[in-house]
Amino acid sequence: MNPHRVVIIGSGFGGLFAARRLKGAPVSVTVIARTSHHLFQPLLYQVATGILSEGEIAPPTRDILRHQRNASVLLGEVVDIDLEARTVTSRVIDHQVVREYDSLIVAAGAESSYFGHDEWVSAAPGLKSIDDALELRGRILGAFEMAEIEDDPEARAAWMTFVVVGAGATGVEMAGQIADLSHHTLRSNFRKIDPADARILLVDGLPRILTQFSPQLSAKAAKRLEEIGVELHLGVRVTGVDEHWIEFSGEDPTLGHRIETRTKVWAAGVTASPLGAILAQAGGFELAKGGRVPVTSNCSLPGHPEVFVIGDMMALDDLPGVAEVALQSGRHAAVEITRRVSEGETAPKPFHYHDLGTLASISRSYAVAELGPIKVTGLLAWVLWLFVHLAFLTGFKNRVTTVFHWAVSFIGRGRAERTITMQQFLARRSLSARVPGPARPEQAAD
Amino acid sequence: MNPHRVVIIGSGFGGLFAARRLKGAPVSVTVIARTSHHLFQPLLYQVATGILSEGEIAPPTRDILRHQRNASVLLGEVVDIDLEARTVTSRVIDHQVVREYDSLIVAAGAESSYFGHDEWVSAAPGLKSIDDALELRGRILGAFEMAEIEDDPEARAAWMTFVVVGAGATGVEMAGQIADLSHHTLRSNFRKIDPADARILLVDGLPRILTQFSPQLSAKAAKRLEEIGVELHLGVRVTGVDEHWIEFSGEDPTLGHRIETRTKVWAAGVTASPLGAILAQAGGFELAKGGRVPVTSNCSLPGHPEVFVIGDMMALDDLPGVAEVALQSGRHAAVEITRRVSEGETAPKPFHYHDLGTLASISRSYAVAELGPIKVTGLLAWVLWLFVHLAFLTGFKNRVTTVFHWAVSFIGRGRAERTITMQQFLARRSLSARVPGPARPEQAAD
Repeated sequence: MNPHRVVIIGSGFGGLFAARRLKGAPVSVTVIARTSHHLFQPLLYQVATGILSEGEIAPPTRDILRHQRNASVLLGEVVDIDLEARTVTSRVIDHQVVREYDSLIVAAGAESSYFGHDEWVSAAPGLKSIDDALELRGRILGAFEMAEIEDDPEARAAWMTFVVVGAGATGVEMAGQIADLSHHTLRSNFRKIDPADARILLVDGLPRILTQFSPQLSAKAAKRLEEIGVELHLGVRVTGVDEHWIEFSGEDPTLGHRIETRTKVWAAGVTASPLGAILAQAGGFELAKGGRVPVTSNCSLPGHPEVFVIGDMMALDDLPGVAEVALQSGRHAAVEITRRVSEGETAPKPFHYHDLGTLASISRSYAVAELGPIKVTGLLAWVLWLFVHLAFLTGFKNRVTTVFHWAVSFIGRGRAERTITMQQFLARRSLSARVPGPARPEQAAD
Repeated sequence: MNPHRVVIIGSGFGGLFAARRLKGAPVSVTVIARTSHHLFQPLLYQVATGILSEGEIAPPTRDILRHQRNASVLLGEVVDIDLEARTVTSRVIDHQVVREYDSLIVAAGAESSYFGHDEWVSAAPGLKSIDDALELRGRILGAFEMAEIEDDPEARAAWMTFVVVGAGATGVEMAGQIADLSHHTLRSNFRKIDPADARILLVDGLPRILTQFSPQLSAKAAKRLEEIGVELHLGVRVTGVDEHWIEFSGEDPTLGHRIETRTKVWAAGVTASPLGAILAQAGGFELAKGGRVPVTSNCSLPGHPEVFVIGDMMALDDLPGVAEVALQSGRHAAVEITRRVSEGETAPKPFHYHDLGTLASISRSYAVAELGPIKVTGLLAWVLWLFVHLAFLTGFKNRVTTVFHWAVSFIGRGRAERTITMQQFLARRSLSARVPGPARPEQAAD
């Protein structure tokens, strides 16, 4: 008899931990993903700002799973899911294949959302992939190069102005790192400009930053950001983005209507993978907020107990779009499948999220942490942040180079990975806009 | 009085060592280069095959020169040199600038040559830049991914076939590394294919490999390559290149006329930077073989003692296109300029190249070395290779991560930098062909 076939779409935290949880189970596991690597997304901003190399946070999925004999990994972008025939169709380059499943875990994550303005992507790339990170690295470090050769004061100021849209964890970390680059890393590197003159703006439509934390910690993080040279502008909405400027509406009189800037980073919002819309069409249901798929209490699709939708793609209990939710829901789906296959068990067990707390690094030696009722800020929180991330990385990757690169950048002035890929820098078009992907199905409004 | 203005075009070994040799001289130094990094080109193949990260071999030029107060670094592609007005025109994105010089060092290096078939670049990228290396990394590692999903035996075989054109140092190193990837690194990573089944061909028009070495060492290196699984085909000329195949003419009956292969690496030849042709037009002279610029014995342009052309761009005594020639001729040009400025000395001193020997790494624990009459092969030569390269890297870069990455890949099975940038992999078009550059002037035939 053939083993029960589990297909997992996605190799992020959800897909990877689901696959690992199925080790030893009497099933065959196929992970289909559109990148050949797992991505340790919480550290992506460090690749974008020259601290880490891409290899340190994006090891090949098949290398992580090489000793799990019941798992295979296949490169491909999923373009269709047929819930009746129980098949998944994927494509890559000139190759298309249809695969059958007995159980399916959809863990394709989320992508940057431009709130209906997808045309902004070229001028303001998001930070969701390794390609995005190299794109932003080229743009940020390249902006200082351009400022150095530019004689016109206005044009130079536009190169020295960086606008980060969205004050969640990614936006805060990016703004903090650009400030650190300009004040520490690039010191003594230029002759005409002083990189410390860079203007770094962090804007958000909400009245406070890091809304996943308590107001008290938000305020402390905001204070720290301002101390290291980040301008905060809250309650402000972006109304237009161009290669040369960004426009706002809102109540902040210190900001003005338009800022001339050559470098924008989009960290304002995410929307679930377009596979959610494919599922909605196939299953005949409506998507929830953010393009998420409404699921039952055990993370399965209503009427399809063999299909699980997890992590950033599922709408369940208003859970946040963080790695820990993806990881735990991926494991839960794997356990549900194992129970059904091994024990013939069919009564679903609901998924309970165990909130292990939230951490965000603001600058060198300063982080904020909220672990239930316990709130920690400053150096202690930052040391906690270091250990948690190192421990996690160790699950996949050797951490020797990472420790070294962190030492270089946190203790010293340097950053080991400042290399600009010229194509990304010169082309001035976002990769996300350039790579041919599958046609996007129409999607429910956010 | 303003100091004597030295403009250096290029940040490779020639340009960088010229700039460093001018430290403390009563001159102002401006390095103009089209990348923001120096490139340690001898290790570029290790970035292309997942051993090193780009940051390890391409540190920012301005960071290397940050303590040299008389030096500034400017990003820009030089599009014109006016020998009469003594100006250099450079461009980047929307910015163009004209700079005056009192002395000029042209050190723009060489690029891949397709012998009149520039249309082959997309299907068979060369290995001259960081962008090229990431492109080839994506294609090589991606080919194994494609083979794993391909069910058709012929299509799969085409993905599992790698053709390296050109058996100089770069070609030999690339072929050796692809063999090592397939036999060691990728072991246990796949379920349907055995990566060790990959066919790796190294072809060259000449009758032996590594012609810069003695025939005896060439033969030993060839034997070693065959032992690690590389097929050698010599005396063979490439007559056609397509995304799906490569065609040959020649005397090797074991090769056939056409090989179906999805991955080609072009390491067959180089031609000097198109700036040579601009100089030839401006100076009214003919280019030498390989697009090189004929220079006087002190590396200056005939009739223009204030202009030096060095490294891979100069035609002098049939010197080879290696880092050591670029480095020494760059230093020589700097000394000539310093003498003239400091001592009013005008009689040129001829450049004498000190050949420190030649090294090539064939596989893990095997290299060949020729130091004058001394010939060394095997482990001893490989240890020598390790020390020479580490010592050299230390001049610019911290070597901690490099030692670690080498340990991982040479002692163990792993490679730390296998991350594929999806754009490079999916677009299937060479970056070199895509990045907008200046119009190329017509060039003398090789």
